[in-house]
Amino acid sequence: MTIRYPNGKAFMNASLAKAPAKKEAYGGRGMTFEQDIDESNAYYLSRQKAVIHKKPTPVQIVKVDYPKRSAAVIKEAYFKQASTTDYNGVYKGAYIDFEAKETKNKTSFPLKNIHDHQITHMRSVLEQGGICFVLIRFHMTGEVFLIDAAHMITFYDEQHLRKSIKKTDIEHFGHIVTTGYHPRIDYLTAVDQIYFQSSTKGANIDGR
Amino acid sequence: MTIRYPNGKAFMNASLAKAPAKKEAYGGRGMTFEQDIDESNAYYLSRQKAVIHKKPTPVQIVKVDYPKRSAAVIKEAYFKQASTTDYNGVYKGAYIDFEAKETKNKTSFPLKNIHDHQITHMRSVLEQGGICFVLIRFHMTGEVFLIDAAHMITFYDEQHLRKSIKKTDIEHFGHIVTTGYHPRIDYLTAVDQIYFQSSTKGANIDGR
Repeated sequence: MTIRYPNGKAFMNASLAKAPAKKEAYGGRGMTFEQDIDESNAYYLSRQKAVIHKKPTPVQIVKVDYPKRSAAVIKEAYFKQASTTDYNGVYKGAYIDFEAKETKNKTSFPLKNIHDHQITHMRSVLEQGGICFVLIRFHMTGEVFLIDAAHMITFYDEQHLRKSIKKTDIEHFGHIVTTGYHPRIDYLTAVDQIYFQSSTKGANIDGR
Repeated sequence: MTIRYPNGKAFMNASLAKAPAKKEAYGGRGMTFEQDIDESNAYYLSRQKAVIHKKPTPVQIVKVDYPKRSAAVIKEAYFKQASTTDYNGVYKGAYIDFEAKETKNKTSFPLKNIHDHQITHMRSVLEQGGICFVLIRFHMTGEVFLIDAAHMITFYDEQHLRKSIKKTDIEHFGHIVTTGYHPRIDYLTAVDQIYFQSSTKGANIDGR
């Protein structure tokens, strides 16, 4: 039953009023790229499809207060430089490692978004036979691409030639990632196609 | 040439004087178990043997100050519950995941050291075909054991029978880990023997 104000307008409580906003978030709109990936990882975990987590932001803790009868409070801490990429975990026995980047640029991905320590880490992961890539979202269109770390490293090493990767090159060397509702960023289907060479249908046996 | 004080006693500068203290740290004495594992991981990384890192402590950041001309300072933050184990990475293409625990107990390992979320995570990792284990150090003797997650989960599930794992059971179900100087905790040699069924000699081809 719809509850109405005296003026006839339907009443919506705060939690209900938020619901349409959530629906608008379909396909990632209104959500950060990071939130969309976190949601996708939670989905994969709940379906026992993969165990992939975002690493916590590394901080150097300097001072902690321990107030009586309440939780410890960190009163002084500093952000530390990460030494790895942001996401890693296991899928079908394989080590998965990736970084996620979003750009507001329409036609290219500026390489200043990628840092030295991330490239160093990617090289090490590839040497150990891990699966390593970068997910790139073009903010304006919502398109997400998976580009293998080997290609990303080549582009990074060739910055004396060009400071960004053309979107057409990302389309050529990378793979489009399906976006939707569950999961929002279905990068594992792309991983299947690229690294496991199994058909998408095979990976969808669970009925998703 | 030895430099001597007028009284004949040999001169040692600060950095040299520290050397014997460092030698005492051989086998982990004076270092925390975590520091020893970090050092071992740094060694493995530098030798291109594996890429394994400790995950940062997860914190919920509430307030950050951005002082002019200096680094951002976190002024209020709280410790969050971790949802995984502490260490993960890649070795020979395989996903490696483990937790490290030290006990001052001499004859058993109390299961209160292991938490629900860690067991849940271990189950998920095993389901995905990852290599998952717990490293246990007996503080008094410095002995380190690797016990596979499957065994640890069984002991955890049987807490109605016993609240701790007898050291003799750890010796039986687990594997002793060689400790030394480089690396301090050579758990990958144990991983080779248990999970890759290759000889230790094969894993030591790099001359270590």
